[in-house]
Amino acid sequence: MSGEPRPLHSRRDDPQALAAGVRRGDLRTIARLITFAERDEAAVAQVMPLLQPHTGRAHIVGITGAPGCGKSTLVDQVIAIARAATLRVGVVAVDPSSPFTRGAILADRLRMQRHSTDTGTFIRSLASRDELGGLSAATWDTVRILDAAGYDVILIETVGAGQLETDIVAGAHTVVVVAVPGLGDSIQAIKAGLMEIADIFVVNMADRPDAAQVVNDLRDMLRLNPDHPTWEIPILTTVATVGAGLPELWAAIERHRANLRESGAWAGRLKNQARAELLKSLDRQWHHHVQERVAASGSLARLAEEVASKRLDTHSAATLLWEELGWKQR
Amino acid sequence: MSGEPRPLHSRRDDPQALAAGVRRGDLRTIARLITFAERDEAAVAQVMPLLQPHTGRAHIVGITGAPGCGKSTLVDQVIAIARAATLRVGVVAVDPSSPFTRGAILADRLRMQRHSTDTGTFIRSLASRDELGGLSAATWDTVRILDAAGYDVILIETVGAGQLETDIVAGAHTVVVVAVPGLGDSIQAIKAGLMEIADIFVVNMADRPDAAQVVNDLRDMLRLNPDHPTWEIPILTTVATVGAGLPELWAAIERHRANLRESGAWAGRLKNQARAELLKSLDRQWHHHVQERVAASGSLARLAEEVASKRLDTHSAATLLWEELGWKQR
Repeated sequence: MSGEPRPLHSRRDDPQALAAGVRRGDLRTIARLITFAERDEAAVAQVMPLLQPHTGRAHIVGITGAPGCGKSTLVDQVIAIARAATLRVGVVAVDPSSPFTRGAILADRLRMQRHSTDTGTFIRSLASRDELGGLSAATWDTVRILDAAGYDVILIETVGAGQLETDIVAGAHTVVVVAVPGLGDSIQAIKAGLMEIADIFVVNMADRPDAAQVVNDLRDMLRLNPDHPTWEIPILTTVATVGAGLPELWAAIERHRANLRESGAWAGRLKNQARAELLKSLDRQWHHHVQERVAASGSLARLAEEVASKRLDTHSAATLLWEELGWKQR
Repeated sequence: MSGEPRPLHSRRDDPQALAAGVRRGDLRTIARLITFAERDEAAVAQVMPLLQPHTGRAHIVGITGAPGCGKSTLVDQVIAIARAATLRVGVVAVDPSSPFTRGAILADRLRMQRHSTDTGTFIRSLASRDELGGLSAATWDTVRILDAAGYDVILIETVGAGQLETDIVAGAHTVVVVAVPGLGDSIQAIKAGLMEIADIFVVNMADRPDAAQVVNDLRDMLRLNPDHPTWEIPILTTVATVGAGLPELWAAIERHRANLRESGAWAGRLKNQARAELLKSLDRQWHHHVQERVAASGSLARLAEEVASKRLDTHSAATLLWEELGWKQR
């Protein structure tokens, strides 16, 4: 109300204060830090080392499947069951969408709103079109923030669409892949990469007539898959809208958690995830570096023009670009 | 049959001979060069400069939509109409899938097989999980090869799933986005990025009861979209399995082609595509470079281990990796 300008970064943005706020579960601080992570702000790199020792406790569950398969309703039901078991639940909904369909995302989130006044549930949507790992980094920063804040279960919900989304969810402890009848070839509707990372299959909308066929198709696919020595991938059926099959899904998630703990695979998943994340970080930083240099030189626009007017092919143009950047061709 | 070893690269792989073979439409040479492009072999970089002056004639049409929306059947029908108009048609089907679901891809391709003995039609599937532009580069090399070989229309069919697929198809002259009723929220089922690059919308399986709703939803979405000064995006309905609405779709594709020619936007699309491709080429080469150096040093595995065991956070680990590579932090 006063005329004085409010500083953009207040004292609350001190790394120690942010970390302490997250640790005691302060919702505003958590939300604030996640926003910083989404924007890739420098503050995050200062806070995360302080939070890292307090992570590693949460069970990270990825839930993914084609658009329209009822993922959000399923997540909503999983939240309800976990809350009934007095577990605190964090949800990171990843949707690499443009502002143009922001309406659809909001509609999705509204379905989970019955949990929005419950302080044991924290729901956050992340959206970005950056394909070079920016969204993945923000997602995993968010997961670690919620982990350090003491959430017992962290659900990562992604549209099982491209490689980007598959890579994000692949780092979870437990990956639930949701299939649905009525999308033509049921197997085709499940993104290829997802078949390989699934720990649990769910056929949702199982009250539809062709649900049994989807289960059979999945069973056939699993037979072709190399053996998992310590875990047999279950194929469950649900009708998420009425909660049918949800207790069984939750039981399977819990069983997989116990299995990871017993087999010693618990930490291995996070190690693979860290490895992928580090590589992407290098790719991303390089990309920004190149963007700046290339944009400053104006050579990209010139070479693209040469290609479009057929004076140059893209392979030759790429070689010229490399040379202008002072790099040798591989 | 003889005991003599056959050289891996025969005289046929001479760049001049390959280019000449493509130019006279020799199917074996075309297929061979596309395989080289898929594998990113050095021969391609030698042949493409020879082909580039002969490209730019073909109408490049991208057809994309969610899995199970009937894209392949639609493509099959478009081929039939174009062939009836005595046009030569090349098809590049892009599916960034793993070998695990190769069966599904084959099933798809089989639907187009009625054209496989027609020398005026060339159909090729490309598959790769490389998200750093390798698949995009192979796709566009293939498009240029088919363009130089004299195909009049080149269809790029992609699953409208992730950013990767959107980027690939965005470079086409004409982008057809296929929607379908029955996937829950009809708008949600269309990947966000696709809404922005569509030149033509098709609601396929329009004999389903909720097709009119999808058309209405799309119309509402288009109203929210900024104006296209020279082209009003049509929303067409088809039942691809029986060919209904296909002549209208073909007419719209032809109309868009004429519009691009008249408005002068024809070359602009390819220029944007070349620009994106050049940037990706830099990203990819860097990625390979880093992979080699990092793998050789063993530091990635060590740092990932540190992160997994909570001694280090990923931001700090990324900074350490950069320093080990001799780069300054951005």
